[in-house]
Amino acid sequence: METVKVNASKNYDVIIGVDTVALLGKKINEMFPGATVCVVSDSTVARLHMQTVRRNLEQYGIKNSSFVFEHGEGSKNPEVLFEILEYLAQKHFTRDDVLVALGGGVTGDITGLAAALYMRGMHLVQMPTTLLAMVDSSVGGKTAVNLKAGKNLAGVFNQPELVLCDTKMLSTLPRPYFNDGMAEVIKYGVIADKELFDLTAQGNPERNIEKIITRCVTIKRDIVCSDEFDHGKRQLLNFGHTIAHAIEKISDFKFSHGSAVAVGMVIISDMANKNGLSEDNCCNDIIDALLENNLPIGCPYSTKEIFHATVNDKKCSGEKITIIIPKKIGECKLMQVTLSEFERMLG
Amino acid sequence: METVKVNASKNYDVIIGVDTVALLGKKINEMFPGATVCVVSDSTVARLHMQTVRRNLEQYGIKNSSFVFEHGEGSKNPEVLFEILEYLAQKHFTRDDVLVALGGGVTGDITGLAAALYMRGMHLVQMPTTLLAMVDSSVGGKTAVNLKAGKNLAGVFNQPELVLCDTKMLSTLPRPYFNDGMAEVIKYGVIADKELFDLTAQGNPERNIEKIITRCVTIKRDIVCSDEFDHGKRQLLNFGHTIAHAIEKISDFKFSHGSAVAVGMVIISDMANKNGLSEDNCCNDIIDALLENNLPIGCPYSTKEIFHATVNDKKCSGEKITIIIPKKIGECKLMQVTLSEFERMLG
Repeated sequence: METVKVNASKNYDVIIGVDTVALLGKKINEMFPGATVCVVSDSTVARLHMQTVRRNLEQYGIKNSSFVFEHGEGSKNPEVLFEILEYLAQKHFTRDDVLVALGGGVTGDITGLAAALYMRGMHLVQMPTTLLAMVDSSVGGKTAVNLKAGKNLAGVFNQPELVLCDTKMLSTLPRPYFNDGMAEVIKYGVIADKELFDLTAQGNPERNIEKIITRCVTIKRDIVCSDEFDHGKRQLLNFGHTIAHAIEKISDFKFSHGSAVAVGMVIISDMANKNGLSEDNCCNDIIDALLENNLPIGCPYSTKEIFHATVNDKKCSGEKITIIIPKKIGECKLMQVTLSEFERMLG
Repeated sequence: METVKVNASKNYDVIIGVDTVALLGKKINEMFPGATVCVVSDSTVARLHMQTVRRNLEQYGIKNSSFVFEHGEGSKNPEVLFEILEYLAQKHFTRDDVLVALGGGVTGDITGLAAALYMRGMHLVQMPTTLLAMVDSSVGGKTAVNLKAGKNLAGVFNQPELVLCDTKMLSTLPRPYFNDGMAEVIKYGVIADKELFDLTAQGNPERNIEKIITRCVTIKRDIVCSDEFDHGKRQLLNFGHTIAHAIEKISDFKFSHGSAVAVGMVIISDMANKNGLSEDNCCNDIIDALLENNLPIGCPYSTKEIFHATVNDKKCSGEKITIIIPKKIGECKLMQVTLSEFERMLG
């Protein structure tokens, strides 16, 4: 079992290992004595893990209830957000009580936002159940719902007070979702850690999963703590993401986030290489690592379509856009370009 | 013209005086060069003041648009909140742009929340047009919308970056709304400032309005800066409000906030007096000041009804409730009582 300590606007622990779910009740009693807990989850994850989680809370004598919404990115909307808030109000939850987000990125994002909004802030514990959520969305405090006009456009920064990553839960995760998470793991390798990248390029990540998650969380922790509110260095985490968000949007979210990130990394590193912006040609190494982890390296959309979907994405700032360019595996840089330069470079 | 400097998680100025609206464009150009502005207002205030505000922005060459929603507390809901957010996204606003809240408390609360949520935070300027909003809701950073289950249950703390209180706008404010604001002014007198209280007890507050607003904002600034996130001293500002929220709810918001606060102060100071909790009997002084300002001192609801509506209000914390008791005019104290003690004391 590993613990990564995060010192952001709140200090909290990310605990990673087999069966960390068993720590939940004990931790809640220590941190929030007397609190009532509401476990928020989606229909798929609730079927697999809700009973285990609530049994653990009951063992420790903690009053608890659950709110379950329909599985899928389609649920990450204002309606479900306010259903959660009305539920908490009907059940007389107070700001001293705890929301537990049990699930993937959608659950973590919407529950994190609900915890920030309910009575202007109640306690929040993240229990990510997907690899993607463990290495990415459960750390850093970004919460959001989607608007009709685009993904993640309404949210706040809200750090959790505890994150429990139970690697045992990954055994129930369908393979495509696991691979999705590997796209983010490979991203961490490209932006900050050649050793991690080389480890993932071997395939078979399950052998080293605790080490991989711990390394990713540590990288994210270091970047987030130096730029909690996303004005500079934190944008490195968006490597491949500007284009990924465009691909998700064009596909009406049929392209999974991880698959879109995989393709986004290929497109942007290929662009960087062709325009002489990288020291090494990283594109081939990235393609190899993606293929080794059963991830896509292309999509059926034209660069023109992708460019236009990008312009409407929130990564734009006035007439300029910040893109993340790999210098070499293990090091990326931020670059501000005008939209027309970006269009030309994409080719 | 007076300036009160607020040093909370953001530092900002509250500028109070005749024709401060004329400062808007200049200030925005200084503080947020190149930003686009969206002025949010309700239908009533937009008719009176929108043109003046947007003309000022145009004089300074600032790109601007407006979002107008239907006047009234009924608009302070999740649907209108997300209409604002979708509007901003459709118009390609970025996090570097500015929302201006032009209006009363409803406009300030919902616009403040929209500014916090849009892309996880864009710039916010408050231009309160009612006395209530000037002395209360535009300072301190509390933002919210109402849930079906209760008032202000979904929100965040989001400090503005500038507040402009134009006292000239008060001349278009219907008398009942002005009186509403005076209920909060009297509250400030009771909790922190006997001199202010005595000034209001004379009636005719218009004569000293700049001084009155400056004094209220200063008191609120001092309290909020010592307890930005509402865990202690800030609760003093809730004097009369626990019961006021209950009265508003029972009346389905037909009782205005100020009228409800007036009645709430009478009920709680009468209770404090009857239970020997005050040094002086403040109740009669408060009643005199309220009558001098044409405010109600009673309501048609029984204490039993009020108690039950209070229990469902967010001021409850577990089985205990914090009530604010006047020791004497100019000084209040917080008191934790169980719900049953509170019910007994209300009588």
